[in-house]
Amino acid sequence: MTIATLLVSCPDRTGIVAAMSDFVFRHGGNIVDLDQHADADTGQFCMRLSFDARGFRLDRDGIRAALAVLAKSYDMSWELAWSDERPRVAVFCTKAPHCLYDLLLADKLGELAGDIVLVVSNHRELEPVAAHFAVPFVHIPTDDKARAEAAQAELLERERIGLVVLARYMQILSPAFVRPRLGRIINIHHSFLPAFVGAKPYHQAKARGVKLIGATAHYVTEELDQGPIIEQAVTRVSHRDSVEDMIRKGRELERQTLTRAVRLHLERRVLITDNRTVVFA
Amino acid sequence: MTIATLLVSCPDRTGIVAAMSDFVFRHGGNIVDLDQHADADTGQFCMRLSFDARGFRLDRDGIRAALAVLAKSYDMSWELAWSDERPRVAVFCTKAPHCLYDLLLADKLGELAGDIVLVVSNHRELEPVAAHFAVPFVHIPTDDKARAEAAQAELLERERIGLVVLARYMQILSPAFVRPRLGRIINIHHSFLPAFVGAKPYHQAKARGVKLIGATAHYVTEELDQGPIIEQAVTRVSHRDSVEDMIRKGRELERQTLTRAVRLHLERRVLITDNRTVVFA
Amino acid sequence: MTIATLLVSCPDRTGIVAAMSDFVFRHGGNIVDLDQHADADTGQFCMRLSFDARGFRLDRDGIRAALAVLAKSYDMSWELAWSDERPRVAVFCTKAPHCLYDLLLADKLGELAGDIVLVVSNHRELEPVAAHFAVPFVHIPTDDKARAEAAQAELLERERIGLVVLARYMQILSPAFVRPRLGRIINIHHSFLPAFVGAKPYHQAKARGVKLIGATAHYVTEELDQGPIIEQAVTRVSHRDSVEDMIRKGRELERQTLTRAVRLHLERRVLITDNRTVVFA
Amino acid sequence: MTIATLLVSCPDRTGIVAAMSDFVFRHGGNIVDLDQHADADTGQFCMRLSFDARGFRLDRDGIRAALAVLAKSYDMSWELAWSDERPRVAVFCTKAPHCLYDLLLADKLGELAGDIVLVVSNHRELEPVAAHFAVPFVHIPTDDKARAEAAQAELLERERIGLVVLARYMQILSPAFVRPRLGRIINIHHSFLPAFVGAKPYHQAKARGVKLIGATAHYVTEELDQGPIIEQAVTRVSHRDSVEDMIRKGRELERQTLTRAVRLHLERRVLITDNRTVVFA
Repeated sequence: MTIATLLVSCPDRTGIVAAMSDFVFRHGGNIVDLDQHADADTGQFCMRLSFDARGFRLDRDGIRAALAVLAKSYDMSWELAWSDERPRVAVFCTKAPHCLYDLLLADKLGELAGDIVLVVSNHRELEPVAAHFAVPFVHIPTDDKARAEAAQAELLERERIGLVVLARYMQILSPAFVRPRLGRIINIHHSFLPAFVGAKPYHQAKARGVKLIGATAHYVTEELDQGPIIEQAVTRVSHRDSVEDMIRKGRELERQTLTRAVRLHLERRVLITDNRTVVFA
Repeated sequence: MTIATLLVSCPDRTGIVAAMSDFVFRHGGNIVDLDQHADADTGQFCMRLSFDARGFRLDRDGIRAALAVLAKSYDMSWELAWSDERPRVAVFCTKAPHCLYDLLLADKLGELAGDIVLVVSNHRELEPVAAHFAVPFVHIPTDDKARAEAAQAELLERERIGLVVLARYMQILSPAFVRPRLGRIINIHHSFLPAFVGAKPYHQAKARGVKLIGATAHYVTEELDQGPIIEQAVTRVSHRDSVEDMIRKGRELERQTLTRAVRLHLERRVLITDNRTVVFA
Repeated sequence: MTIATLLVSCPDRTGIVAAMSDFVFRHGGNIVDLDQHADADTGQFCMRLSFDARGFRLDRDGIRAALAVLAKSYDMSWELAWSDERPRVAVFCTKAPHCLYDLLLADKLGELAGDIVLVVSNHRELEPVAAHFAVPFVHIPTDDKARAEAAQAELLERERIGLVVLARYMQILSPAFVRPRLGRIINIHHSFLPAFVGAKPYHQAKARGVKLIGATAHYVTEELDQGPIIEQAVTRVSHRDSVEDMIRKGRELERQTLTRAVRLHLERRVLITDNRTVVFA
Repeated sequence: MTIATLLVSCPDRTGIVAAMSDFVFRHGGNIVDLDQHADADTGQFCMRLSFDARGFRLDRDGIRAALAVLAKSYDMSWELAWSDERPRVAVFCTKAPHCLYDLLLADKLGELAGDIVLVVSNHRELEPVAAHFAVPFVHIPTDDKARAEAAQAELLERERIGLVVLARYMQILSPAFVRPRLGRIINIHHSFLPAFVGAKPYHQAKARGVKLIGATAHYVTEELDQGPIIEQAVTRVSHRDSVEDMIRKGRELERQTLTRAVRLHLERRVLITDNRTVVFA
């Protein structure tokens, strides 16, 4: 069964849902999931619509052409994805293994609507982890940052990577690298953003004496830790927790938050609008 | 602005969303919220659709007639509610005040899409609470249970009550009372059902040594504590918590879980199907 | 049964627990609860020790004298409280009723180890709430802030108030008012501090697109929203939640977080050290 | 630094803490952590006491002899553990890899106060996982259950295993195997016990329509799913979650709950009393 998933946003007006569902129905599709939201504050309409495309009376190009016409009349941004065209994912990491294991295991267990095809690191420590899961590992040192980013960009291009996941990748990407990939790089920050932006958030949390620590998965933008948030989670800490305990508890948060965000993205449940996300969960 | 909210369930087939959204659109309505679910296991389609009915080109009777026709062709169960026809709610209680306060305060703060117009109790302890919130209080003793239920039924009828909330009402209602009110009586049970059915769940929880205690809001059916679950919550306990501590922590759970369930019901977000609920939250 | 509770902090060294427990034992007390923490990072020792003082062979003055001697030899800060000397609590509020109801109901249900004896407000809206719970209400307008604080200070003095609770009291207290009451004023801030310091945190949260909102109960210090945190909680939000929905969800968080913090304080479970708290929970 | 940790339970009476802390102090130890609880309902006293044993003026045998004397006068059950005598752990599994990965990674990251030295399975699927973490893997088929348990028992004996972890091991152990290992076998059950005892708990949860699913780590006793609970966790589900979704969400719960329970056990934070646990966390 092939499912087409359409993400749409546009200024709200009457008849959009009717027009879109009628389009699907008229050509022989069946809607399997429709989630829609019209924001009273911003006047924006957002929708996620999945339909079973067996027996659809338009081919994929035909659908795109028809959608382009519809989109024009509603001033619509849209993305269309097919369940049999699985995104290819690259995971960037450094030395911390927990997020990498979690993502690779999720992939192996069939939990992701995409395929991790590449692990990239500026160190060699995690090469055996990639090997264990039979995923190619590429070592790109970051001593010369410009050269590293050029190599990374070339690799992503060659491997037709649709999503980059920063799994505790301890390097800051340049605006030049980020800009053409907006909405296609997910990072895990080890705090409950916007609290504790920047370096050593667990040390900051300990110093401030908070009673909960958190993790935040977000799209990377040119401004550090300021991109649209996809998913957040927290866990309780107390005075008994040293910074090391927080780091340990944080690992659990980081990996589950990151893997959830990647899952949501790959299932096309995340729509970016105005530096925020709409998550159709 | 008057909003119409339609809850629909039927066997899944192609074209339902298109038919319904087209119906709204053709008569001049604008969909403000649509949430839909087709269950792969049961083959059942469920939908909640809200539309702005200003300028709708059918009156309420006309809409009902038109929906009845649509419903027939899709073998559909449906309910239609109008935001300006607010349900009238009766709260049944005994002596414990916490859930009653929570509901009355939520009402006073405008958090509910309905109006609490009646407090019914088999004791007089909570009469001042009702008075404080200017809600009529009716004392119906339950020494003679049959007589009590007759008086309650008559009262609900006379006051055109659409929802009965059992806010720690320590009486078991007879099947004869419950049967004609299926889906219109909400109870709070002070455990995480199906764990600890029946009496003294906190004592049971203490004896079993669980690490979390819970509360469950559910529709009342003829079988005790077996009705469709609307909402559940849990909180952490430890060996330090005596039964009394659990009762105190439980109060917080009970009232927030019950008030949430009542809010969801009144906003027409709950659809019962097959002794379970679909909650469009 | 009279319980004495001792809170102690000092530089860590060997023998403190032995010295303290021996002191209790030698004079005929029985330890009912002892919780102790030696912080590896700061080298500080903190302890909460409760003992049953029936049959203790020193009177209260004698105990204080003996503790003063012990304290000197260990360079100890300490506080001693008796379960039969219940702190007198004043609640400051403005117009929002939810935290006030929660505190007054907790008091009425016997959940607090102190007594709310006073409600102070710069408006009259909540006077009926205080009256309903039979707690004196004092209206102190804040047009002239200096005069208001003088009146408040005089009132707290006269009523021998041991704890001030700011239950969504929308006024900033002056350093002159705060300084002599450090550790004796608890505020509820409607965000997960340190995120969203200052005004309108729910609007800030909506703008940033966070997936969880929070509340923080903390002691008031001279710097706004920077005092030692006692308790925090969060709840999930999504794009569907308008600022108004966040405010409603926030009410639930605010009141439960504030009431918990007040309960912990009154049970002498909170020790302030270095602008952080140790909570023996 | 060598830490000794003492777990003690006995009937409550005056002077126990004083006697124990004095014992530590007199011989030159320093208490680094003391957590104590006297249960008002059962009259039982429980304590966990850790002390730095450098420079202690008794050797380990001497300490044991002295403790035996103390224990006699207080009718005390006790266990003493040394941080440099790390328990040896065996993980039993079948085919599901998620709990095994989590435990092995926690071990590798130094998060456990014990060493996983053995993976035992009735299938060969997870042999590469053990190999990847360089832990010996032993395949013991369970076609002949009595023979299998004899082989397992012999292996545990030979390898001096102090803790057996059932990491989604789909076999029921016989009373004869369990009885001599009470308090030394931890299982993960994939529901919030006591809800959904027995097989296929996620199917049961789906059928009942609960809004939260859970996982429970408990010591194994002769009665299935009835042993003392160490740790529990829950996560939210909705009508959108199929049984497969619940299984996926459940994996996250199972592994984190199991790993936490194992960590708590290995840090000697769990005391069993009366088919319940006291967890000094």
